[in-house]
Amino acid sequence: MTTARPDFLLTDLYELAMMQAYYETGQTGTAVFEFFVRKLPAGRNFLVAAGLEQVLRFLEDLHPAPDELAWLAGSGHASRDMIDRLAGFRFTGDVDAMPEGTVFFPEEPILRVTAPLPEAQYVETRIINILHFQSLVASKASRMVLAAEGRTLLDFGLRRAHGAEAGMWAARACYVAGVSGSSNTLAERTYGVPAAGTMAHSFVQAFDSETAAFEAFARARPDRLVLLIDTYDTIAGARRVVSLAPRLRAMGITVGGVRLDSGDLDTLSRSVRDILDAGGLRDVTILASGGLDETAIHRLVAAGAPIDGFGVGTSLTTSSDAPALDCAYKLQEYAGRARRKRSEGKATWPGRKQVWRHVDANGCMAGDTLSCASDPQKGLPLLRRVMQDGRRVAPPPPLDAIRSHAARERDRLPPALRALQTAPRYEVRISDSLRRLAADVDGFIDRGDAPR
Amino acid sequence: MTTARPDFLLTDLYELAMMQAYYETGQTGTAVFEFFVRKLPAGRNFLVAAGLEQVLRFLEDLHPAPDELAWLAGSGHASRDMIDRLAGFRFTGDVDAMPEGTVFFPEEPILRVTAPLPEAQYVETRIINILHFQSLVASKASRMVLAAEGRTLLDFGLRRAHGAEAGMWAARACYVAGVSGSSNTLAERTYGVPAAGTMAHSFVQAFDSETAAFEAFARARPDRLVLLIDTYDTIAGARRVVSLAPRLRAMGITVGGVRLDSGDLDTLSRSVRDILDAGGLRDVTILASGGLDETAIHRLVAAGAPIDGFGVGTSLTTSSDAPALDCAYKLQEYAGRARRKRSEGKATWPGRKQVWRHVDANGCMAGDTLSCASDPQKGLPLLRRVMQDGRRVAPPPPLDAIRSHAARERDRLPPALRALQTAPRYEVRISDSLRRLAADVDGFIDRGDAPR
Repeated sequence: MTTARPDFLLTDLYELAMMQAYYETGQTGTAVFEFFVRKLPAGRNFLVAAGLEQVLRFLEDLHPAPDELAWLAGSGHASRDMIDRLAGFRFTGDVDAMPEGTVFFPEEPILRVTAPLPEAQYVETRIINILHFQSLVASKASRMVLAAEGRTLLDFGLRRAHGAEAGMWAARACYVAGVSGSSNTLAERTYGVPAAGTMAHSFVQAFDSETAAFEAFARARPDRLVLLIDTYDTIAGARRVVSLAPRLRAMGITVGGVRLDSGDLDTLSRSVRDILDAGGLRDVTILASGGLDETAIHRLVAAGAPIDGFGVGTSLTTSSDAPALDCAYKLQEYAGRARRKRSEGKATWPGRKQVWRHVDANGCMAGDTLSCASDPQKGLPLLRRVMQDGRRVAPPPPLDAIRSHAARERDRLPPALRALQTAPRYEVRISDSLRRLAADVDGFIDRGDAPR
Repeated sequence: MTTARPDFLLTDLYELAMMQAYYETGQTGTAVFEFFVRKLPAGRNFLVAAGLEQVLRFLEDLHPAPDELAWLAGSGHASRDMIDRLAGFRFTGDVDAMPEGTVFFPEEPILRVTAPLPEAQYVETRIINILHFQSLVASKASRMVLAAEGRTLLDFGLRRAHGAEAGMWAARACYVAGVSGSSNTLAERTYGVPAAGTMAHSFVQAFDSETAAFEAFARARPDRLVLLIDTYDTIAGARRVVSLAPRLRAMGITVGGVRLDSGDLDTLSRSVRDILDAGGLRDVTILASGGLDETAIHRLVAAGAPIDGFGVGTSLTTSSDAPALDCAYKLQEYAGRARRKRSEGKATWPGRKQVWRHVDANGCMAGDTLSCASDPQKGLPLLRRVMQDGRRVAPPPPLDAIRSHAARERDRLPPALRALQTAPRYEVRISDSLRRLAADVDGFIDRGDAPR
């Protein structure tokens, strides 16, 4: 699924329509598109870039198969001439991007495509589809990691993720953002995200007693054993674990942890901790799950609930408080001239842009500058060349290297931005050069496009 | 992508763990699991079932490939014996389900799996992943269809859908629910959902004038021509269309519509309508898009804005107000005895269940009954056998037949449930037989599972 050739037809029909019109009118000059987020979701202070690896793979592998062209020819959606041109289609452009795991803010491009207009246009739909979702989940997961203050976090969200690809990419984006592992087995095989899991209520229900279920599971899966104790009554479940532990120990099996999946997790975790400790099971950890999000995690951590780890599903893989980012992939330059859209409430900064990050004496992020890409360097640019003429300039970084970069980025967040509640806005200064360019472009639009 | 063999490893690791434990302990008797939604999202009055076709295809095709087993053997996640058993794995069970497009309510199972416990358990993750998302989107889309009161609705949501499969399934679920078509080209090829689209702002920006862009697009794509008029100034854009129309007409090209994508759509649509009408373009339709949801559509329709169709993206494909349903796939019977989970706030009705719908004299839905499946018939059951011994009992219905069924279901909704705001809860009566069974099961749990 994740290694398959890209579906050439997985795109908005209008990309094909525009591509054909570009070819017919000879609009095949060099275009520059940038992907950026327009504004932060309510209550959010920063975003985390993710998905670049999948974008690059898409661009490398994108070409139509004969059956796709045959279908298109018969669909009435493309001319004969267009079909002929598509037969040799490859993405031949350049890509500049922020490394995955980088913290970013509204208006800042995280990816720039420079390519002949038909190519740069055609890839719009899928590029947004990839970058939007992974950045969405990485941004959400990063908040959970901050809230968990070092406790283990696991992604349990595959079942409620929006389809297979969402489940796969969510596992990846969560791991990048600092989550420890995922319930998704295929994510371990595909990306190396450690797979983790416990047991379900159905397992307990299928046995005639909870104790029998625990024992059967322990014998079958003795390593990293975690028992789910809330199927009937959490307190009784904890007592059963204590009663069972010596018998398991005699078989050489150690109970690693218990999981609570319902009820008042703060109160229950304390009671369960007491029962386990009194029963000599001080090393048995408590994992909590069940409708958790970063606010719930923060509350439990702040209250001092004795919970060692959290399993989080729906809120993580759907980014439930904000299941979409207001983002766009916009034409910023064509045929050597900067462009901008001026639609009400959706105007963009024109031209090729660069982002510069300022850091204070403590290594904390201290404001960014959004400038024209051609401006003199102001330190290290956040956007760097990752693809040239349709080929990567370097092999993909290992996922753990991306994850380490994300951890360093998280460490550099100013204290106010690390909080779950809304902080004063992080400064993204617009350079004078960029303001001048916008004014110039507006002058061009206003002069050149009078009704005729 | 959508026709590929199911990834055997696309599942929560705990399904594999439990499966192995079931095999080792001989827990391979017949299990009955049901998929249901626990409660309605805030502000919702009903749900629409979708995704059954993908579930059946998954169950038919599910088997591990040699490379998947080799990986699993090396992963440490499964015993040698388990790997040997998996080599011959096939789903051999039965499935009963509500037809896609059926309206349903909380607590009502829309799918029941009856199979040997390891099989029925293993398919949990993906069954939820499929049914949850498609039912989520079909339910959301149905509200939009009601709000649009007969106006055209188009799914523009591929780019913000959570990955490729979400984009595909959203297009399908929207179409089932009454949306007219999708921007997703592959959804036309795969499912026969009509692909539709206009043009992007980038197209307009790439030309030296808006008029030149309109003319180029019209020549390249003369059929069903829709021009996007808000790139710089919507009113000026509308005037340009009027000026251009005679020249296009001379070339045999008719402007079909214009699209507004920003600003105050009520006010702008009236101004644009006036300009078009005054310019002799009474047949040119107005399509509106840009951050719309059912509330915005309802408001525009109620205000009498002269909008003929709506393009809806993010809110539709992410179900933005409720990006997940509180749903579950729960063990209800094992080895001939009913089971139930009693976790705090998550208790379920035990046993195999059936849903019966009562209809009033006007053909309106007038309450459902949730009963034991073995109870005497009370009319037509909503759950029907669709798979027997791992094989479908009938070929898949055409998508348009599913869509027609959904339309009939929508027509049967009581007026109060058709409103966007919360209505009094639709009655789902629990039969006396089911209440008795739940009490019996609790007695069994309380007697049989004392700590020991």
